[in-house]
Amino acid sequence: MNSPAQQGHHIVKAFSEELEQLSASVATMGGLAESMISDAIDAIITRDSDLALEVVERDKRIDALQHDVERQIIRLLALRQPLAWDLRVCIAALKISADLERVGDLAKNIARRTRALNEAEPLALTKSVERMGRLVQRHLHEVLDAYVSGEIAGAVGVWERDDDVDEHYNALFRELLTCMAGDPQLIGPGTHLLFIAKNLERVGDHATNIAELVHYAVTGSELTAERPKGTPLESGAS
Amino acid sequence: MNSPAQQGHHIVKAFSEELEQLSASVATMGGLAESMISDAIDAIITRDSDLALEVVERDKRIDALQHDVERQIIRLLALRQPLAWDLRVCIAALKISADLERVGDLAKNIARRTRALNEAEPLALTKSVERMGRLVQRHLHEVLDAYVSGEIAGAVGVWERDDDVDEHYNALFRELLTCMAGDPQLIGPGTHLLFIAKNLERVGDHATNIAELVHYAVTGSELTAERPKGTPLESGAS
Repeated sequence: MNSPAQQGHHIVKAFSEELEQLSASVATMGGLAESMISDAIDAIITRDSDLALEVVERDKRIDALQHDVERQIIRLLALRQPLAWDLRVCIAALKISADLERVGDLAKNIARRTRALNEAEPLALTKSVERMGRLVQRHLHEVLDAYVSGEIAGAVGVWERDDDVDEHYNALFRELLTCMAGDPQLIGPGTHLLFIAKNLERVGDHATNIAELVHYAVTGSELTAERPKGTPLESGAS
Repeated sequence: MNSPAQQGHHIVKAFSEELEQLSASVATMGGLAESMISDAIDAIITRDSDLALEVVERDKRIDALQHDVERQIIRLLALRQPLAWDLRVCIAALKISADLERVGDLAKNIARRTRALNEAEPLALTKSVERMGRLVQRHLHEVLDAYVSGEIAGAVGVWERDDDVDEHYNALFRELLTCMAGDPQLIGPGTHLLFIAKNLERVGDHATNIAELVHYAVTGSELTAERPKGTPLESGAS
């Protein structure tokens, strides 16, 4: 029979394995979310309806994974009653998985607009959307790297560069409105590109949220309350 | 000195008071979110910039409340290590507070567009936006009632009527695009109304999320996985 110390050791070992399993599940969700954003952008640029459909389908897997992560966390909280660092890891995983589930939704929404764009004339503007998309994708990649490695520098970097995404979005918003005003034929596809840009901006926000959660999980303290934010266009534009 | 039984009783009493305090904080957030949506719609309809500014300011209170709710939950999880029903109440409160924080953001985004609309001609379309807004506001109110009372029928009702919001949104989307195509002057304000409609649709989604969480907290089981959903416009419209 095991001594109490050995038993304790085994419990601790099982617990740390469960926490590792939890982090691995969140990382898998992250990889999936990243691939969905990347492929949704590709689908938009190349007007590839098959790829778009694949992205839409992939969203079910990310939803199932989130359910699985939640079940793991509820089980951990109930059976292991974690404290301090361990509790933070659980809370952060719960919230990061919610962010990633939402990124999956946004990728799905972007992909769904491919068909609407397919029917329209190609727009040079999709190039601007692509640039914004790649930037957001990079942010997501960097915060997920920081989550896996626990090295917060990458997360803080993304958090500090949140402004870049807003600037891209504001420029694109103006560009699209000008185009639509110049050629009413472009109102349909232009509107879809506007929503795509908005969705990408939201993905950027989720990347920033994840940066804050990685920082919280690792250090136990919050990044200063006020996130750097570009002047929101909504308050000024007509 | 208290007997162990008395001490146990006190601990249980303190714990149930803490859970009540937690629910009260979430309900306060709910009331605030509801008032923000209602006032944001009013601000849009009456082009009231002062009211819009007040809504934007109120978002800070909802953010602060969410922080407070999270602190309460982390404290409860760490000190009380709740199980079964109590744990579900904590998890649901954590997720509902995240939904409500996001509803506050969306109300702020809507209010921010008041100034942009102010500068433009009044549009009959704001009436359609108002109808959609009131519907969403009612959904939010009903799920918050269900949260406070624990009577899930109201929550299930909202969950089943999620389609109504989508139908409103799809009709409004078509109406706005037609207007913009007919008069390029309306592209600016029309775009803002499009985003407002999209934000309201998202508020409706959060109300549905909250309905699911109330159901989960009370019954321990999930509403069937597939929510009723209208055909998303994005896949068809050009």
